[in-house]
Amino acid sequence: MKIQQLLEKKELHPYLLKVRYGMEKESQRVTLSGDLVATDYPETLGNRTHHPYIQTDFAETQMELITPVTESIPELFRYLAAIHDVAYRSMDAEEMLWPLSMPPALPEKDEEIIIAKLANFEDVLYRRYLAKTYGRRKQMVSGIHFNFEFSDTLIRKLFEAQTEATDYQQFKTDIYLKVTRNYLHYRWLITYFFGATPTSEARYFVDEKGPEEPVRSIRNSMYGYKNHEDVQVTYATIQAYLADIDRMVEEGKLSEEKEFYAPVRLRGGKKVADLADAGIRYIELRNIDLNPFEKYGISEMQVECLHVFLLFLLWKDEGTDADAWVAEGDEKENIVTLEHPLKPTVFIEEARALVAELAAFIDKLALPVSKNLIADLEEKLASPEKTLAGRLYLASQQTSQKELAVTQGKIYHDHAWERPYQLAGFRGMELSTQILLFDAIQKGIQVEVLDESDQFLKLKVGDNIEYVKNANMTSKDNYIVPLIMANKTVTKKVLASAGFRVPAGREFDDKEAALQGYAEFAEQGFVVKPKTTNYGLGISIFKDGASFEDYQEAVEIAFSEDTSILVEEFLPGTEYRFFVLAGETKAIMLRVPANVKGDGVHTIEELVAKKNEDPLRGTDHRAPLELIQLGSIEKLMLKEQGYTVESVPEDGTIVYLRENSNISTGGDSIDMTKEIPEAYQKVAAAAVEALGAVICGIDLIIPDKNRPADEPGAYGIIEANFNPAMHMHMYSYQGQSRRLTMDVLNLLFPEVM
Amino acid sequence: MKIQQLLEKKELHPYLLKVRYGMEKESQRVTLSGDLVATDYPETLGNRTHHPYIQTDFAETQMELITPVTESIPELFRYLAAIHDVAYRSMDAEEMLWPLSMPPALPEKDEEIIIAKLANFEDVLYRRYLAKTYGRRKQMVSGIHFNFEFSDTLIRKLFEAQTEATDYQQFKTDIYLKVTRNYLHYRWLITYFFGATPTSEARYFVDEKGPEEPVRSIRNSMYGYKNHEDVQVTYATIQAYLADIDRMVEEGKLSEEKEFYAPVRLRGGKKVADLADAGIRYIELRNIDLNPFEKYGISEMQVECLHVFLLFLLWKDEGTDADAWVAEGDEKENIVTLEHPLKPTVFIEEARALVAELAAFIDKLALPVSKNLIADLEEKLASPEKTLAGRLYLASQQTSQKELAVTQGKIYHDHAWERPYQLAGFRGMELSTQILLFDAIQKGIQVEVLDESDQFLKLKVGDNIEYVKNANMTSKDNYIVPLIMANKTVTKKVLASAGFRVPAGREFDDKEAALQGYAEFAEQGFVVKPKTTNYGLGISIFKDGASFEDYQEAVEIAFSEDTSILVEEFLPGTEYRFFVLAGETKAIMLRVPANVKGDGVHTIEELVAKKNEDPLRGTDHRAPLELIQLGSIEKLMLKEQGYTVESVPEDGTIVYLRENSNISTGGDSIDMTKEIPEAYQKVAAAAVEALGAVICGIDLIIPDKNRPADEPGAYGIIEANFNPAMHMHMYSYQGQSRRLTMDVLNLLFPEVM
Repeated sequence: MKIQQLLEKKELHPYLLKVRYGMEKESQRVTLSGDLVATDYPETLGNRTHHPYIQTDFAETQMELITPVTESIPELFRYLAAIHDVAYRSMDAEEMLWPLSMPPALPEKDEEIIIAKLANFEDVLYRRYLAKTYGRRKQMVSGIHFNFEFSDTLIRKLFEAQTEATDYQQFKTDIYLKVTRNYLHYRWLITYFFGATPTSEARYFVDEKGPEEPVRSIRNSMYGYKNHEDVQVTYATIQAYLADIDRMVEEGKLSEEKEFYAPVRLRGGKKVADLADAGIRYIELRNIDLNPFEKYGISEMQVECLHVFLLFLLWKDEGTDADAWVAEGDEKENIVTLEHPLKPTVFIEEARALVAELAAFIDKLALPVSKNLIADLEEKLASPEKTLAGRLYLASQQTSQKELAVTQGKIYHDHAWERPYQLAGFRGMELSTQILLFDAIQKGIQVEVLDESDQFLKLKVGDNIEYVKNANMTSKDNYIVPLIMANKTVTKKVLASAGFRVPAGREFDDKEAALQGYAEFAEQGFVVKPKTTNYGLGISIFKDGASFEDYQEAVEIAFSEDTSILVEEFLPGTEYRFFVLAGETKAIMLRVPANVKGDGVHTIEELVAKKNEDPLRGTDHRAPLELIQLGSIEKLMLKEQGYTVESVPEDGTIVYLRENSNISTGGDSIDMTKEIPEAYQKVAAAAVEALGAVICGIDLIIPDKNRPADEPGAYGIIEANFNPAMHMHMYSYQGQSRRLTMDVLNLLFPEVM
Repeated sequence: MKIQQLLEKKELHPYLLKVRYGMEKESQRVTLSGDLVATDYPETLGNRTHHPYIQTDFAETQMELITPVTESIPELFRYLAAIHDVAYRSMDAEEMLWPLSMPPALPEKDEEIIIAKLANFEDVLYRRYLAKTYGRRKQMVSGIHFNFEFSDTLIRKLFEAQTEATDYQQFKTDIYLKVTRNYLHYRWLITYFFGATPTSEARYFVDEKGPEEPVRSIRNSMYGYKNHEDVQVTYATIQAYLADIDRMVEEGKLSEEKEFYAPVRLRGGKKVADLADAGIRYIELRNIDLNPFEKYGISEMQVECLHVFLLFLLWKDEGTDADAWVAEGDEKENIVTLEHPLKPTVFIEEARALVAELAAFIDKLALPVSKNLIADLEEKLASPEKTLAGRLYLASQQTSQKELAVTQGKIYHDHAWERPYQLAGFRGMELSTQILLFDAIQKGIQVEVLDESDQFLKLKVGDNIEYVKNANMTSKDNYIVPLIMANKTVTKKVLASAGFRVPAGREFDDKEAALQGYAEFAEQGFVVKPKTTNYGLGISIFKDGASFEDYQEAVEIAFSEDTSILVEEFLPGTEYRFFVLAGETKAIMLRVPANVKGDGVHTIEELVAKKNEDPLRGTDHRAPLELIQLGSIEKLMLKEQGYTVESVPEDGTIVYLRENSNISTGGDSIDMTKEIPEAYQKVAAAAVEALGAVICGIDLIIPDKNRPADEPGAYGIIEANFNPAMHMHMYSYQGQSRRLTMDVLNLLFPEVM
């Protein structure tokens, strides 16, 4: 059965566009004025020998960003976005990525192009060999390698729907070989649309002359980095392909297989030999120039176009002579690459026919692709200035290609730095998870989101897998610990029996017993609360005791929230949140209710607006601090103090807008880690140890932090939290930032930190 | 300030009855016909060298039950109840506890009274010494030791309210000394009320003559087990008390301190020397005879009476000469113990005055004691036949004391065996927790309920503390594991990436995407369900595919329950629950929907009633199986099969009353652990390991258990549960019982199991 008939089968329809994508994208690191940097690969990035996301290509300045394998365009771009964010914010803030495939102005002397300082000496040697064989300047060109794999389900369904082929692996290999041959035959069309290297910058062409006129793609042309002409490989069968490469390595035309640099590379496993055993698993398109108009070097539409084009190439008949078919493609590619970017291609008629055929194919198979995909291609055919090379060349005419590159580069750079606590691609997740993902990517820990809305991550280094939920719920804590902390009574019993001071108190299951208990609490400060408190509902605080009537009312309020209530002594003092990890207090936070500080000039409303300008403030827990509101609660609070929003507080006067100190209602987070004596830090850490916890946010009331911590009543522990907030410590309103996510990662993967 | 004034202070009121109780209760093990057993201490009980709850006293047949320290009467009786339940069900079912203090008929020969076979040779030697000094028969008497401690808060508040005493420890010691002297002085009153050893059984008096008439308390009389007369100790001061004991040990009148056997023992720490260092911490009343009319040997009213009496004795003035005061009490005790149980005491007037004074004391301090406490005492004074000795003697007259003891003993024995899956005292807790508590007590693991409604336990052996919630949530699992299992998508991803078969499927967050996915599922059996399922709501199963309309409806139903839904392939086969613990499948359960088996004679209604007679069936998860209902769902199900409740199904016909197989709706639990081949057991254990779990209930669909487990499609994993039910495996409807709670304890405390 012919492949067309197979692809048209109804039961295959759900699987036609199922796919696996991966992308490698090289860029030169440059200064904000567009000069090649002199700095090394950023130290903040983990060990680059094993870094899965951020590598160095040929030169030390040439950063290579690598996505994991993804199964959709949104997923691919989420990783592109995140890895770019991490790359930018791991470099010096005065560095950026050059958005063009052609390198920025190169140094005068060859040796000033610094070969990547890799730890593995073989890797360095190989680069030295390349430098010698092809010249360092040629190696400075960057581009995108697009790894493409049809979903195995699709190929399996195709296999099952036919009868001729009996070996699945061979069937699969043949599919990729056909697509490869067709791609090589038709790739000039991709070059027409997406070629984006019309001209070069200073000192790229030194040893040879470049093209005299602007072109569509220097990089893919005879002027690009290519194997020597005597390197020729057949794509007729996988055996012949491998034999050709082996022969050329033997003959010394290639130093090793990986020197074979073709527009499409057949991929099986890690080594070329795996192809012989396992067949082709996916293909790597290497002819994609960086798109300077896109912050990640390629657009989603480009990826979709490539995808549907590759499926089309599987469907489309090919020439009978494999080598001739590929050779014909090479010839056309040589022509198209060197055409003027603003002129139509000489193959315009064939191009139109191909796009029409592609459109018909999409219709026939009812592929759910973007509506304007075909229209966009048709427009590019009609107007060469709409092609990438055309756009880039035209735009460069107004100033220079360099200036355009700098402008675009800075836009992308600024975008990455705008909200440094967020991670592009993952902004829908909780802030702490975004920061943890950032740090993991930075340190070269493989990340996978298992469930986005559940904040569930899989992290991996080598064979070591760790799962993390909500940024600090991990395998390092044991199961009973959060259950202890979720139960206030149990927490208190455990802490008390370990000798820590907790508020004395009792639990009551019925109102009568609670009322009988009045005498025990009447004379001192006490708190009545539901056993399980949500958002502080149902709590009554009597700082200096209460009448029986008030007590009775408080008991009734508490019972309206829960079937059990607690009556506890009130502990006066300041509440601090201690963040304890692996036996150590890592951060201490004081939370202050929403407030503004008067200057004798501005109204409260103006002061709030000014304070809200802080980029750390946002809404909905997507920023480390929340915007201060001026709602009814705040206005009432102002009124009670004799203010309105129009009042102008005196210089230095602090005006509080809230009674509660929650960060979520505009409170300020103040890091106090240095200010709280070590003895208290040890108390907190020891209490957490008594609870058996590894990660814990524990709240201590401290009347006077200058009193010795071992004095009676020096502290009281009022709560222990098993999934403590971290972002407020990491981006505090005042005081030092504490990078707790790094501590979490260090706990999980000490080997890479 | 005088103690009366202190006790009357208003601020002390909440603390007056705060207390710590502990009880040790000895009983002889006898056959169901009341003969001393010949068996050893039950092997099912853990190591008795360290057993905190169930020990052996002098003889191998003499079981000693020990409660932990408790803080209220209900708590004390909950432990008494539980420890009795465990003791009964750890002995042979043909053994019981003799309910009298006086032993059952003793053997003819002394050496047939077997000294407890303790591991520690010193303990055996001491018993041999006692046998020689006092005779084995004397040692066979049993009784209750009541440990009593005023709450430290009460004593501290008393101390703070006065000014004379300056040393807290001395103050406390003096309080207990005063109570002790008064108790010794007035203890004849307790003997009058609660003495319960009027006569002895055969061969108790062999070497000496017993009383000729029935008495109130042989045990507390000169005929009981007493030190020799030359052992005399003063209670004037703690120093003098200790000096007296030291002197008598030196003079050889006592072999060691613990041989000093007084009605009240002063307790400080483990050794008497601790008294010198730490003062008196509590006192131990040793003069309480077993109450044969109470299943635990003492009533709650008795405990309350003793408690309030001891507080009264603290309040009440004493004689100025300490030794004379005590000696006077001894004399009266000697008289009252030997009075006829049906006659008034000669001290009736003093007794009446004391009770009146006690009543006035209760009134004055407004103590919240039982309303009929005083009336009950007054009645006993007026009618000696209402005293325990009187009641016992009178009742014995009708048959014999032995027969009465056997009758009472059997009632208590049967009570303990009635619902062997429950644990008396803890019946409000979940069944699995009750069983775990039973096993822990049996094995000598210290138990503490930290939160009853939350099923939160603290278990302890030596310094090793483990917390357990819901019977199998422990520290042995790590925190991330239950979070993985709580998320179906994450569970499937983790299992699939480890190579296990899970139903293929997709998660959808919006209806449109879900509807687009139709084609992927249309042709095969599939299931549509909300991501988070509660009680099976919102699930649609299409065993052979579905029309788009049906699919659409199913999607809408699922989205009405959750914001995310799953569409998964339907796996045909039988569902088995594998209970895996520490890498091993411990039990496999098949759950069958509620059903009855016809016999050609009875109606369905009758068959249901008959099946419900099984003591394993109950309601509300307080039994391993639930009662089968005949509600509207069951009637509808019958109707669909052409039955009514009046139908008489043919012999052997199984009639199902439910579609779902939940145990909670009357389903049957069938143990299949032996029937399922090992290969499947290993798959389940390996899948649980892949999830990282130590304890897990994992559900496998197996189309044919006789197919090799490694064949494609031999199984599919549909769910993993992090707090799997255990009681259904332990008390299954059919098949072998699997004592999973023992496995849990073995995981936590391998050293004691």
